[in-house]
This record gives sequence, C-alpha cells and structure tokens, in this order.
Amino acid sequence: MEIKTIADIDIKLASVSKIKDVDFETLSFGNVFTDHMLVCDYENGVWKKPSIEPYAPFMIDPSAKVFHYGQAIFEGMKAYKDEQDDVWLFRPDQNYERFNKSAVRMAMPEVPEDVFMGGLKQLLEIEKDWVKKGKGSSLYIRPFMIATGKGVVAAPAVFYRFMIILSPAKSYYSGEVKVLIAEHFSRAANGGIGAAKAAGNYSAQFYPTKLANEKGYQQIIWTDDATHTKLEEAGTMNVFFRINDTLYTAPTSERILDGVTRKSLIDLAKRENINVEVRPVLVTELVEAAQNGTLQEIFGAGTAAVVNPIVGFEYQGTYYELPKLDQPVALALKEKLNNIQYKLEEDTFGWTVKI
Amino acid sequence: MEIKTIADIDIKLASVSKIKDVDFETLSFGNVFTDHMLVCDYENGVWKKPSIEPYAPFMIDPSAKVFHYGQAIFEGMKAYKDEQDDVWLFRPDQNYERFNKSAVRMAMPEVPEDVFMGGLKQLLEIEKDWVKKGKGSSLYIRPFMIATGKGVVAAPAVFYRFMIILSPAKSYYSGEVKVLIAEHFSRAANGGIGAAKAAGNYSAQFYPTKLANEKGYQQIIWTDDATHTKLEEAGTMNVFFRINDTLYTAPTSERILDGVTRKSLIDLAKRENINVEVRPVLVTELVEAAQNGTLQEIFGAGTAAVVNPIVGFEYQGTYYELPKLDQPVALALKEKLNNIQYKLEEDTFGWTVKI
Ligand SMILES: Cc1ncc(COP(=O)(O)O)c(C=O)c1O
Ligand SMILES: Cc1ncc(COP(=O)(O)O)c(C=O)c1O
Repeated sequence: MEIKTIADIDIKLASVSKIKDVDFETLSFGNVFTDHMLVCDYENGVWKKPSIEPYAPFMIDPSAKVFHYGQAIFEGMKAYKDEQDDVWLFRPDQNYERFNKSAVRMAMPEVPEDVFMGGLKQLLEIEKDWVKKGKGSSLYIRPFMIATGKGVVAAPAVFYRFMIILSPAKSYYSGEVKVLIAEHFSRAANGGIGAAKAAGNYSAQFYPTKLANEKGYQQIIWTDDATHTKLEEAGTMNVFFRINDTLYTAPTSERILDGVTRKSLIDLAKRENINVEVRPVLVTELVEAAQNGTLQEIFGAGTAAVVNPIVGFEYQGTYYELPKLDQPVALALKEKLNNIQYKLEEDTFGWTVKI
Repeated sequence: MEIKTIADIDIKLASVSKIKDVDFETLSFGNVFTDHMLVCDYENGVWKKPSIEPYAPFMIDPSAKVFHYGQAIFEGMKAYKDEQDDVWLFRPDQNYERFNKSAVRMAMPEVPEDVFMGGLKQLLEIEKDWVKKGKGSSLYIRPFMIATGKGVVAAPAVFYRFMIILSPAKSYYSGEVKVLIAEHFSRAANGGIGAAKAAGNYSAQFYPTKLANEKGYQQIIWTDDATHTKLEEAGTMNVFFRINDTLYTAPTSERILDGVTRKSLIDLAKRENINVEVRPVLVTELVEAAQNGTLQEIFGAGTAAVVNPIVGFEYQGTYYELPKLDQPVALALKEKLNNIQYKLEEDTFGWTVKI
C-alpha cells in the first residue's frame, strides 16, 4: 500500500514549534498535541479543500448538531519511527475503512481516501520530529468527524468537519488492571451502535466505570445487554481469555468493535501455533476456569496499550485472582506485534505502511 | 413554584435585535435563535459566574471531550404567552430534575437550580418579545451541557459548559405520520443510557430512521433490543396506543425516556375518566388489535408537538392503516393540555409556572 499526498491542500505552518517545551519522558496519554492539525469541511454534499494549520481552538455555533445529537465519530491509530528515522503506520487501511463504516452508521458523510490518508501523510511529514524513536514511543493519531451543521432538530446535519490531531505517547503502563464483569450496566444494544467508533458509546461507559473505580476496578468487561452471560469487550479494548492453553475471544458483532489489534493478534497467535478460538465466551466458563485452575490469562487488546494484562476480575461479589505466569502469552504477543510495528522484525503480513 | 433570579450574573446585551428579520409565520422548527444565550462554565469542581450574552459561536479546542466521547446532554421545554402577555413555563421542575439525572448518568456535574431555573428566568425576561401569543406559538427552550475539557483519553472531563439557547416555534404540523415498528435496529440497551437525554442517543437513530424514510415512514417506533417484542417509544416522543377504548403506554425504564408530556397526558386522561393502562405493550397485541378492528389510535407525545397522531404502521412487511376517527382522543387531550399551557383553562394540577 502506498499513500498518495493530496494535490490540492492549503498549508499554513505554525510560526514557532511547541516541541521544545514538551518533556517526552513524562507524557500522560492524550493531553499534549503537536503543532498542526488537518481540517476538512463538508458542506451540502461536497468535501472542501483540506488544510493543514496550526493546532488551535476553532469557532462553532451553540446549536451545532454534535452538541445536541452526538453526531461524532473517531479513529485511533499510531505512527512509529524505525531505527532509520522512517515513520510507519500499522494497518491504516483498517482504520480508514472502519472510520467510514462508523460514518455510515451515524448518518455522516464518508471521508474520501485522499483526504483521510493523503492528509494524514502530509500532516505526519510536517510533524515527523514529534515521532520519537524507541520501543514504546509513538505518535497517537486521532482522526475524527463532527456535525457542525446548526439546528436543534433531531435529524442529520448537512455540515461536517473532519480533523486529524496528533498526540505524542510514550510506553503505555496502566499499573495492575483489575476488572469488573458487568452484571447490570451495558455498553451496546443489539441493533445499536456498539460496532461504530461513535463518541456516544464512550461517555455512556463513564458512570458505570466510575462506580467500578470506586470499588477498586480500573475497567469493566462488558457483557451482552440482554442476558449478561456473554463476555464482550472492555471500554477501549477487545478482550482475550487464555484457558487451558487456548486463546478465546468473542466474535465481533453489532455490539463489539472490530479492533485492529484483536485481529492482528489472532493472526499472530495462529502463526505462532497458539490455539485460538473465536466464539462467544460465557461468564460461567470464565468463572469455572478460574475455579478449576485452567484460567491462565485475561488481556485487553487495543491500539493504545497493544496488550493490557489483567490480574483479576470480580463477578457477583467474588474476586478471582489470576495466576502470575513467568511467560505470559499476552506479553509474548505484544513483543511480536511491537517488533513488527517498530520494524525490528520482518513484517510477513504486509501490515506496515511507510509514510 | 416560584423561580428566583440569580443574584450574581453578567449581562451583556446585543446591540441590535434580530427579531425584525424573523418571519414568525414561516418558522421551521429549531433553526432560528433569539438574540441572547445563557452560558455557565464549570471548572475543576466549581460552577463559575453565569452570563447572558449575545447569541454567537464560541471557541472550543479540537480535543474537547464532547467531540470524542460524546459527553453531552440536553433538555427541551417551551415558554408560552397568555392573553395578558405573561410568559409561562410548563412543569419546568420536571425538566430540571431530568437534566440532572441525565448529568449523573453521563458522569457530568449537576447544574445548580439557580443557574438552570434562575438563569432561564432572566434570559426569558430579556427575550420576552420572542414569545408570541396565540395557541401553537411558543418559544422552544434548549438547555444543554457539553464537556469542554481537553484530551483524547476516554474518561470524564473536568471542564464543562452549560448553555441555554432559545428558538421561536410555531404550531407544529408534521403532516401524516406513518411509522415503522423496529425489527432489527434499536435505540437503547438494558443498562444503557436510553433514559437519559444524552446526545448520543439521537444520532444513533439517524441511520435507521433514514432507511425508514426511504420506505415512506417518517418515524420508527422502537422495540426492546433483546427481543423486539415490546413497543417502547419513538425517536423524540413517547407513544400511546388506544385499543378498545383503553389508552396503553409502556412504563418508563432504563431504556425509555420519562417524558413530561407522557406523564401529563396520563394524569389528564385519568381526570377525563379515560381508561389508562401503563404496562408493556406487545407488538403482537398491536397487530392483533389492528387486525380485529379494536385498534383506534396511536399517537406520539412530546414537548415539540404535544401530541402527534399516527395514521398507520408497518410491521414485518405489512402496512396497517388506522381508522379515521371523528373525535380522536389524541386531539382532545392535546386541546386540554394546550389550554392549560396557554392559560386558557384552569390549571388544577399546578403545572404552570409564571416567569
Ligand atoms: C470499544 C473499543 N473496543 C476495542 C478497541 C480496540 O481497537 P483497536 O485495536 O483497533 O485499537 C477500541 C479502541 O480503538 C475501542 O474503542
Ligand atoms: C427519546 C424521547 N422520548 C420522549 C420524549 C418526550 O419527552 P417530553 O414530553 O418531556 O418532551 C423526548 C423529548 O423530549 C425524547 O427525546
């Protein structure tokens, strides 16, 4: 895959860079942004000329539909720098496709490939100093689209804004993660928008997650809302369970996001001759496995952390601690995936794309 | 109930009013706004001094959490003018309470009563010329709150903005409304945010509604997402079914908004000695009643239209036309409620509040 730059784009560079003020060692995730952003407006059926401009607040009407009806979608991806100072993306075609799937589900216009991918390439070329070398360092990429059209009437907008902002990230360490299995609250409905990266899916989880935090759990593993018997995914990660040397993960569905990390780990695990089964995983199976000692690992999979090992879970008032393994599969897979992403190992899958 | 104005508020009036440019006869709902808006910011746990200022776009950071995680809630209410030129609200305490319930569910700060109610009173005093006399005319009130706090990390913001904007509305006529009964898509999950007026709930409906529109249906009546057997509510209205001279409506739940119009109509209908049953209504019951001739009316109930009669519905590919009645209960109830709202009839319920 080769990304073409956009022929017709306005570029207005920042007069000074903020990069000197940034301490790349103490970055907290998602709070520092680079000098520039990509902006492209959609008006009455047409995408206008995109521009790269200094990162800055912008004006928006109080009646913009994003505020009232939540027409907003996003993607999350990363740029990595190799030892030769080249910048790489990991399966960006997957994020682009998913972005437009989310757009369709939220009745928003699809973003053309040259705006999304070409714009991203040009933005990254300008910001390449913000991509730091070294495993763990990366530049987090946040493409998003909001409804800027006005009016407090519940119908799709006719004006939209697509933007890409960039945030430098260092190695993600979340501490020990304990999770709560959802028994009452839910993340997504059958026939709902759970499979879209729609803004509203995330704020919907804040309150239940706050309650979980108060009980000492960092995250929730969501279950199906109808029966709360099937394990689905975490707030921003798909989940894997290793039981009796087999890796299990739920099939994606209308309720579950089709994570890029998830599907890459499945392929990697298969290549490593690890048994992988993609099928609904029941809460009762998990509890039983924890009780009879066959549960080996649980881990989340997502772009931010790649792999996030979970040390224990609570279900129906009982806490189940996972064994401490010397050689967890979670970390082995993370290492393999990172090696591909940072170009330290041959990319036999053809997942990496040079900027 | 008496509303107190806010002691400490900044008021900056617009130098000229736009009111002369507005044709109040041809207003389309939700597209014209008055001269002023109320703004109140929340920063690190504290609500700041509110202000009333000229209606205008404002600056916001591209990483504001409302754009990425959809932390946004709203209310919808109306101001009415009586024959003595006094301005009245209808059960504003219900909207205030519901707003703060939505805030809690979306992990947002609750808005103090003096900011919400007192601010609204002062704003309406300034904008009283925008409330036109005559049944059907009203000033639609849109209080809303958005997360202005920055950062692309999925967690509640620490900065928020509460605003009230106002939009003049004339008598709502939607034409003949045919509805589709949802068989696949859904509006809300068990344990989800359906009962909150959260922005994300509305955009989630746009795509299925677009598909319904293409089939000739203006709205969808949502069913429970787990089984699609129970009739729940429409996009911005609760729904009533009149079968064999009894009015049925679903009980409110985690999935269904507790509409002010719905509960007022229930009380009014009871006073008028109409049989009302609040209980789950099955799709099969509706179809059966349509088939055996006992289905008399279906109507939506919400602030915008008060009552919206439905002329027919489609379910599983079959269209069921409703009888054309000389004296529909829907319109009788609408008339009664309107008379209370416009102070044309005694308000024995104590629902109306003078500004
Ligand atoms: C709900 C949800 N599930 C799973 C994921 C993981 O997806 P990916 O691996 O593509 O980052 C994310 C994050 O993007 C997410 O938001
Ligand atoms: C989902 C939903 N249901 C029902 C209603 C009707 O509620 P109310 O009568 O309070 O306007 C609304 C509108 O506010 C709504 O958004």
